[in-house]
Amino acid sequence: MSETITAEDFLSAVSFNTEGLVPAIAQDAKTGLVLMMAWMNRETLKATLETGEVTYWSRSRGEVWRKGATSGHTQKLVEAWVDCDGDTLLMKVEQTGPACHTGAVSCFYRKRGP
Amino acid sequence: MSETITAEDFLSAVSFNTEGLVPAIAQDAKTGLVLMMAWMNRETLKATLETGEVTYWSRSRGEVWRKGATSGHTQKLVEAWVDCDGDTLLMKVEQTGPACHTGAVSCFYRKRGP
Repeated sequence: MSETITAEDFLSAVSFNTEGLVPAIAQDAKTGLVLMMAWMNRETLKATLETGEVTYWSRSRGEVWRKGATSGHTQKLVEAWVDCDGDTLLMKVEQTGPACHTGAVSCFYRKRGP
Repeated sequence: MSETITAEDFLSAVSFNTEGLVPAIAQDAKTGLVLMMAWMNRETLKATLETGEVTYWSRSRGEVWRKGATSGHTQKLVEAWVDCDGDTLLMKVEQTGPACHTGAVSCFYRKRGP
């Protein structure tokens, strides 16, 4: 129950917010672990699709952020998915090293206890 | 490599945006399938943690949205996770029926082809 669409249709399907951004969830393609969520603009989404190097827009630094450019903890794109209303992306990736800047495998390392 | 924190600390760890919202990713607790992403405010996050019924804030309708309230396609909370900087949540859920309003199992049913 999935559709395969062209890269062009994929880009057209994405609905960027008023800041020109869309949230992108990164999931480990092998383990299914959800690694992080960050933002992309049209430029970094295109770069991600074209190069296979997952690239975000850093809202805090206001610049293009090729994941792992400084840390070496890159994400190689395996599959790119867009949701029903085009306002969220799911990137299945091959993660090198920890995804989180804290050194944790995933940014989601804190869990609500009982 | 995970920490368990109290519900109180969990709520304190969350950083709501200027609209008072935080994105919440819903993942099927059993299969690992990423189902959808939607938004919560403090009230609906508290309701989710207290009742175990995953509850969002509908930005389009401007109202509390207990998932499945009309469709019956509810999400029962299994685990709640918060990310490193507190600006994204990951809810592992037990999903009844399809998660997507289109009838798809997951909202992410469109994939970029080669």
